[in-house]
Amino acid sequence: MTTDSRTSRTQNAHAHLDEDPAFALHRGGKLQVTSTVDVSDHAGLALAYTPGVARVCDAIAETPELVETHTWKSNLVAVVTDGTAVLGLGDIGPEASLPVMEGKSLLFKQFGGVDSVPIALACTDVDDIVETVVRMAPSFGGINLEDIAAPRCFEIERKLRERLDIPVFHDDQHGTAIVTVAALHNAARLTGRTLGDLRAVVSGAGAAGVAVTKMLLDGGIGDIAVADSKGMIYQGREGLTPVKQELADISNRAGVRGSIESALVGADVFIGLSAGEVPETVVATMADNAIIFAMANPNPEVHPDVARKYASVVATGRSDFPNQINNVLAFPGVFRGAFDAGATDITENMKLAAATALADLVGEDLSADYVIPSPFDERVAPAVAAAIAEQARKDGVARR
Amino acid sequence: MTTDSRTSRTQNAHAHLDEDPAFALHRGGKLQVTSTVDVSDHAGLALAYTPGVARVCDAIAETPELVETHTWKSNLVAVVTDGTAVLGLGDIGPEASLPVMEGKSLLFKQFGGVDSVPIALACTDVDDIVETVVRMAPSFGGINLEDIAAPRCFEIERKLRERLDIPVFHDDQHGTAIVTVAALHNAARLTGRTLGDLRAVVSGAGAAGVAVTKMLLDGGIGDIAVADSKGMIYQGREGLTPVKQELADISNRAGVRGSIESALVGADVFIGLSAGEVPETVVATMADNAIIFAMANPNPEVHPDVARKYASVVATGRSDFPNQINNVLAFPGVFRGAFDAGATDITENMKLAAATALADLVGEDLSADYVIPSPFDERVAPAVAAAIAEQARKDGVARR
Repeated sequence: MTTDSRTSRTQNAHAHLDEDPAFALHRGGKLQVTSTVDVSDHAGLALAYTPGVARVCDAIAETPELVETHTWKSNLVAVVTDGTAVLGLGDIGPEASLPVMEGKSLLFKQFGGVDSVPIALACTDVDDIVETVVRMAPSFGGINLEDIAAPRCFEIERKLRERLDIPVFHDDQHGTAIVTVAALHNAARLTGRTLGDLRAVVSGAGAAGVAVTKMLLDGGIGDIAVADSKGMIYQGREGLTPVKQELADISNRAGVRGSIESALVGADVFIGLSAGEVPETVVATMADNAIIFAMANPNPEVHPDVARKYASVVATGRSDFPNQINNVLAFPGVFRGAFDAGATDITENMKLAAATALADLVGEDLSADYVIPSPFDERVAPAVAAAIAEQARKDGVARR
Repeated sequence: MTTDSRTSRTQNAHAHLDEDPAFALHRGGKLQVTSTVDVSDHAGLALAYTPGVARVCDAIAETPELVETHTWKSNLVAVVTDGTAVLGLGDIGPEASLPVMEGKSLLFKQFGGVDSVPIALACTDVDDIVETVVRMAPSFGGINLEDIAAPRCFEIERKLRERLDIPVFHDDQHGTAIVTVAALHNAARLTGRTLGDLRAVVSGAGAAGVAVTKMLLDGGIGDIAVADSKGMIYQGREGLTPVKQELADISNRAGVRGSIESALVGADVFIGLSAGEVPETVVATMADNAIIFAMANPNPEVHPDVARKYASVVATGRSDFPNQINNVLAFPGVFRGAFDAGATDITENMKLAAATALADLVGEDLSADYVIPSPFDERVAPAVAAAIAEQARKDGVARR
């Protein structure tokens, strides 16, 4: 960027400040840390700080599990990012990612009663990020990875789960997967089918595409194939990364090659997680009773008005159309439930249980415009939390 | 520790829980993270989170200084410890240090309006701590180091100040020094002297002893000598660590050797920062109009009732005697002022300005029982903050 263009872009950015309510709302940030106890006099101070606090420290040193009950650790999530895959904006760096991370934190609190702190890191190497998070883990009860680019995000999550005994959850993968699977379960039910009856095509082999595919396979989908920017991923395609090779091994049983357009002919389900546009002529080749989840934001891969001409159920990531696939339906309840159970991990079973609980909330009100609850449905976080905690106990990863 | 003694200590610790109000107060921890904005409907969510938040992220990516005004970073301190020197408890580890760090955070908020987050680290190596803090620095506007054992604390602070452009402040050093210098300034005034008239002896060459000594030298004290567990530190003593060698180079102009008892003969000031007891017979050898600051907690090096028999002014670290030397008089105002000025560093001048502002609040009410304001004096943090911000601008380290 030249100095001139920089100056001009700076002026543009400043011009926004006066016009855009988003900037007014963000002034001063969106979070604060407050006390839950009273320290307005000497007596309060003597309990919350020296000398009283020393007795609590001493007790934790002797009885480590007291850190769970007598500090905020067991309700506290680190929202960890390196700023390399922020929303649709890409690699904008740690500082510029902070407004998203603060937003995540306020949603954690509002919907799940979970405290959390944005930790945006000035490093992108897998082992640097893993070491940094392991070192600060004594302060936190859980780690929510956020907006870290694929494929590093997969390895970071795997290594942290191995090394830590607190829940580690990459929301871009598993939050999206839980909500997508819940919505697809209900879309299948509405059209008189089960997941096992469906052949799905996923556009995008990033964090969300990989996790949605794996979870739908765990959930028993009939067949599912994934496309990246080079076309369909299949057994024998040259030059696949390890993660895409794993996808080739477990998905696309039909062995479809070539472009996503050819794969969509006769397909029951399209799941868009890539922002790659799909033309109307291609949408028209899908099977009867098609299901289209076009989740790119702000521009869905297929515009909902077009999708509705060919599909029985349409969902997007947007709040201004029906059936919003929004991660806020998952992550607050996931950590609420994990903390309630003192879970040391979030297992695949726990994620599937969360998806089922979320789908079940729709119940008899199921319709083409209502396959997934609203983000403001107050039943959501408690239902997800209860399913997560119950499954944690069944899976033997609960400490309470 | 054997399993048996472990079990028995666990039972003892649990017995405390029922009897001690400090445990009742600490249940569930002492902090929470809350939102400062309203996201109770779709419109609020669309501004604070997607899609509105993306415009703010984009603006920060283009105009980095907007991170200061449109996130909480510029009001947020990381309270960083490795749990190796917690209060008088010593090396109790990161988890057991959390109640103290949470206490620090609530005092930051209550007295300075500063948000802060405890970060207790599972590493003790100097470079590991430095790297970890540098990596997470994009999320924070300042670093408060806390309860890290000497001499590592000195090197960690030095390296972090070199590598970061945000304020780095080791409270155990500089917070203690600011308050001690303020109190000593007033004690000298009360007895008709200036710092230059005084010969002081410091017991303890840890974080606080080193910082108090350096700051009193900067402030123009007549002479000052420091004792560690082996006796007085002087030019030529064998086997000194680098930090103690520096003390030998700059302090103890009289070249006093041997025990602290010999150094105290005729001394004007005793500053206890070590918990090493000083017998009454030794206190009796000090000069007329002696000043005794016995700050070990909970047991002062000289009991105040004994000290008063020989000294004109007595101060301690305890709230149940007059003249409490309490760091809470410094750190909330120091970071409030640094943040108000957008300071990139906290200079020696800024610390001296804070001490002067704190001393000046006592004004004409000065007496033997009032050489330093109360922690609940509401004038304190604003006065310290104003002095810090003004000096930051004079020293050229202010960005606003």
